[in-house]
Amino acid sequence: MQYKAPLRDIQFVMHELLDSESHYKTLPAFQEADRELMDSLFEMAASFAENELSPLNQSGDAEGCKFDNGKVTTPKGFKEAYDAYCELGFPALSAEEDFGGQNMPFSLSTVINEMVGTANWSFSMYPGLSHGAIQTIEHHGTDEQKQTYLEKMVTGEWSGTMCLTEAHAGSDLGIIRTKAEPKEDGSYSITGQKIFISAGEHDLTGNIIHIVLARLPGAPAGTKGISLFIVPKMTVNADGSVGESNNVVCGSIEHKMGIKASATCVMNFDGATGYLIGPENRGLQCMFTFMNVARIGTAVQGLTAAEYAFQGSLTYAKDRLAMRSLSGTKAPEKAADPIIVHPAVRNMLLTEKAFAEGGRALVYYLSHFADTVAKGEGEELKFADQMLSLLTPIAKAFLTETGLEAANHGIQVYGGHGFVSEWGMEQNVRDTRISCLYEGTTEIQALDLLGRKVLGSQGKLLANFVNVIKEFCEENKENDEMGQFIRPLAKHLKEWGDLTARIGMQATETPDAVGGAAVDYMYFSGYVTLAYLWARMALVAQTAIANGTGEKAFYDAKVKTAQFYFAKLLPRTTTHVQRISTGVEPYMSMDVDQFAF
Amino acid sequence: MQYKAPLRDIQFVMHELLDSESHYKTLPAFQEADRELMDSLFEMAASFAENELSPLNQSGDAEGCKFDNGKVTTPKGFKEAYDAYCELGFPALSAEEDFGGQNMPFSLSTVINEMVGTANWSFSMYPGLSHGAIQTIEHHGTDEQKQTYLEKMVTGEWSGTMCLTEAHAGSDLGIIRTKAEPKEDGSYSITGQKIFISAGEHDLTGNIIHIVLARLPGAPAGTKGISLFIVPKMTVNADGSVGESNNVVCGSIEHKMGIKASATCVMNFDGATGYLIGPENRGLQCMFTFMNVARIGTAVQGLTAAEYAFQGSLTYAKDRLAMRSLSGTKAPEKAADPIIVHPAVRNMLLTEKAFAEGGRALVYYLSHFADTVAKGEGEELKFADQMLSLLTPIAKAFLTETGLEAANHGIQVYGGHGFVSEWGMEQNVRDTRISCLYEGTTEIQALDLLGRKVLGSQGKLLANFVNVIKEFCEENKENDEMGQFIRPLAKHLKEWGDLTARIGMQATETPDAVGGAAVDYMYFSGYVTLAYLWARMALVAQTAIANGTGEKAFYDAKVKTAQFYFAKLLPRTTTHVQRISTGVEPYMSMDVDQFAF
Repeated sequence: MQYKAPLRDIQFVMHELLDSESHYKTLPAFQEADRELMDSLFEMAASFAENELSPLNQSGDAEGCKFDNGKVTTPKGFKEAYDAYCELGFPALSAEEDFGGQNMPFSLSTVINEMVGTANWSFSMYPGLSHGAIQTIEHHGTDEQKQTYLEKMVTGEWSGTMCLTEAHAGSDLGIIRTKAEPKEDGSYSITGQKIFISAGEHDLTGNIIHIVLARLPGAPAGTKGISLFIVPKMTVNADGSVGESNNVVCGSIEHKMGIKASATCVMNFDGATGYLIGPENRGLQCMFTFMNVARIGTAVQGLTAAEYAFQGSLTYAKDRLAMRSLSGTKAPEKAADPIIVHPAVRNMLLTEKAFAEGGRALVYYLSHFADTVAKGEGEELKFADQMLSLLTPIAKAFLTETGLEAANHGIQVYGGHGFVSEWGMEQNVRDTRISCLYEGTTEIQALDLLGRKVLGSQGKLLANFVNVIKEFCEENKENDEMGQFIRPLAKHLKEWGDLTARIGMQATETPDAVGGAAVDYMYFSGYVTLAYLWARMALVAQTAIANGTGEKAFYDAKVKTAQFYFAKLLPRTTTHVQRISTGVEPYMSMDVDQFAF
Repeated sequence: MQYKAPLRDIQFVMHELLDSESHYKTLPAFQEADRELMDSLFEMAASFAENELSPLNQSGDAEGCKFDNGKVTTPKGFKEAYDAYCELGFPALSAEEDFGGQNMPFSLSTVINEMVGTANWSFSMYPGLSHGAIQTIEHHGTDEQKQTYLEKMVTGEWSGTMCLTEAHAGSDLGIIRTKAEPKEDGSYSITGQKIFISAGEHDLTGNIIHIVLARLPGAPAGTKGISLFIVPKMTVNADGSVGESNNVVCGSIEHKMGIKASATCVMNFDGATGYLIGPENRGLQCMFTFMNVARIGTAVQGLTAAEYAFQGSLTYAKDRLAMRSLSGTKAPEKAADPIIVHPAVRNMLLTEKAFAEGGRALVYYLSHFADTVAKGEGEELKFADQMLSLLTPIAKAFLTETGLEAANHGIQVYGGHGFVSEWGMEQNVRDTRISCLYEGTTEIQALDLLGRKVLGSQGKLLANFVNVIKEFCEENKENDEMGQFIRPLAKHLKEWGDLTARIGMQATETPDAVGGAAVDYMYFSGYVTLAYLWARMALVAQTAIANGTGEKAFYDAKVKTAQFYFAKLLPRTTTHVQRISTGVEPYMSMDVDQFAF
């Protein structure tokens, strides 16, 4: 499938819905990011994604990464594409200026990431992980560490990884076993095995800088005894050049369902030299910055899957002929009507569209809070931080699950053809399936949302957002055309509060109640969050139409997609509310031994 | 993953829920199928599925089928497994006795198919398609055709295919183009290309007998101009031996998402000699028998996916350690609790279990009606035929969609490990994804259910089933322990009728209303159908417990799974009702041109 960057919709969200230019003006560091600069950046990224990356997406999947005796070879064309990506300055976009970065807002780089990722998610994993390592060094590194690594990472000459997971410790990082033994020169000897390390080894860069979680001797058990280390693949000489091998070896790569062009490595550290970054035993805290950013990055993957499915299946639905419309023949000159005449096909297309465009709005919306967290101050920073805390697990879990759903619709619209590789639809499902798993599974995100964020803040974080939505409802209560959205939104808003209070009560008696309700609560929250954004988008569109826009079809489609969302997707909340109301007992009543076959 | 046949549950459904032995006694042709014979047959199939087929499932996926210059090679071990399958007499099980069949009830062969298919769905496709061809010849062939083909097909020495689909004609068979030109000797010259032909070419048998849909010269356009032909890969000599090649060539095999060990072929017929089977221009009608059976066979695939996911993820959930239970540590001697303590994990396991066991009940239940349709008479046959007509599209669409959901839970329980090939969970998703597409997509089944079966019979087919459930509710209304199931079941039963009436009214004004409501209606029907069967299973289990069973854990698990189903899965109907209530307008209001990106 040839990807086409949805520039008009990206501009709609950035300029018309979120007014990014004004937002950037409030942050001294981002004054230069005006609309012109943004649009030219978007066009540059669109052209690169469409022309360089999209053609490598299916071939990269078919070829996969090759592993041979510790070396990993990426698919044909990836090295050239990576070099082009670096030449365009993309690795440096949101990095700090001191080391060659362009200091662009996170929200801007998110737009670029969306385009790059929709065109070729496997490719986007290489710079994506590197970005996490850059951020970690920027935030927690010493001056010397920044001096040693950042510049080459920011240009893309070197890449980085995040080495967290071990075979027995996935979601539960408290039980990792990799050891860091202090050496006389102040460095550490790192020994252990990490698994699922994306971009752990590859042929795109001259060096790979691993950020590794490990335990110091005598460190407290659990999450409070984990420290963070920089472990380069090749040592770095005093003059900055690449030295010798550092006993970091890729043991194998995983054979997996999808993202086959992204190398997922087993990494063996066998007395590798590492350097402590951040305070001893506070490694997991240092990781939180990265983890939040990585979660937003993964939320983007959900939206890319929906967009990719929409583009592929829409093209097919207009082209493919089968049966006649039940309401009368639509294309009498043809042997059958194009399948887009059938309501069931339209349901799938509109679901993809509502999740792609709604997901875009959500990801960009929360990325703007991330900008403020990075560069704002005072009350605004505090508020943005709280909004980001609340919205990140919602976006990560909800958008990846709905992205997977949309990807499956992408197959379904194609019928049997969706199951064959040729059209790219089945690859989309395989590639995006991981998004519900890595960077914290859907279930982990849901617990984070309900347990830590909502109940853990005594409802404060939720109240912030509820007030934002209430204000929006209040502002538009006189607008007749908006009533169709405002009324159900207000109703669901009240329900959100009631639901939260009810779970909070249950949880005081039954601790498992939080675990029992969390996933349904996450879905409920996701649907209401997207309802708010769809209502806002409808308002922007209605206003444009009222002002006599020349793009009536575009804005009218927005209003109709919002109507579809409220009529057909928002009602899913009802089932989630009902499931929560039946409590945790139906999950817990069966003894472990009774689970059998 | 090593498959273990769920013999206890199979016996529960066959003997305790459906009392198959008594059922077979009502059908003169099946007198011999007593419980002892059944159980020994189940054990034989279980042993074969576990020991011969399960070990080839993952290796078959990894190796796939090879295509070289018209020849297809199946993966290592498939030929030996196929020979063993034939030696056990499985191809002959439900074939008629006249040509070497064992004339066993369809419901019995369905049980065998479940075990064979769960162990290795790709393998099961080869005999599965052959069975369709056997049935077609049994029902529509001349004596001479039966004589020529059946015996060798029933032993498995030859296999068969069904050649329906063409590149431009998938769901819409009315527009196929393959031509049949009459020859002087009464045979026909068949020319055209068929795609998606499962088992179209392979190395398992000495000949392949294709059943091909084609058009006679001057045949009416559309579905009323299609005839059916027998086209052997190799001609058959007068003495029954294999003759020369018949201009039937496999052009390529598809690269697809899953069932990679099943060859999906492009078949080119280039003036191949074919023999008319059944009346001219009535080929599609002749296909209906096969299609219904094939749909039940595909419904089985849904249940196999749920069972496979349940077996794999349950084993992992008991073994894998992560986090502590929110209600207090459960395994203090370990570094963390096994993940089965977490409600979200239990939700996934119970969902898999409820769909696997509920799906088994539904498939076996409707297979019993198929027995009666095949061998019964009078009012009973008529009633069974109507029940089968109603339940087949429900079972096909609902069980494949819920099977896919369960398969995805199978991945999710494993976390990141679910995404790697090693554990078999991702293969399960890839293999089962096709089940929602072939033999009529979910959307086609839904239209068949609502449009043709329910509304098309003026509600008669639905009323039959509603009365069966009403009777059950009535019979158990005094049973206090059953109240928890009977009350919601009765409520949903009434809702089912109301919903149907409402859609019927809408449809008189808006023809597209049927298309708009069909998929939601199918889900609603599926959830209520499974609720009925779960209530019946709960009754059997409660009765066994009351009678002082020695297997209390097993029966208690049944009751608790039923409770889970009613508390957590049945509430999904609410959203489907709401979606239907908002009508078809939200699908249709957008112009085709407004669908854009």
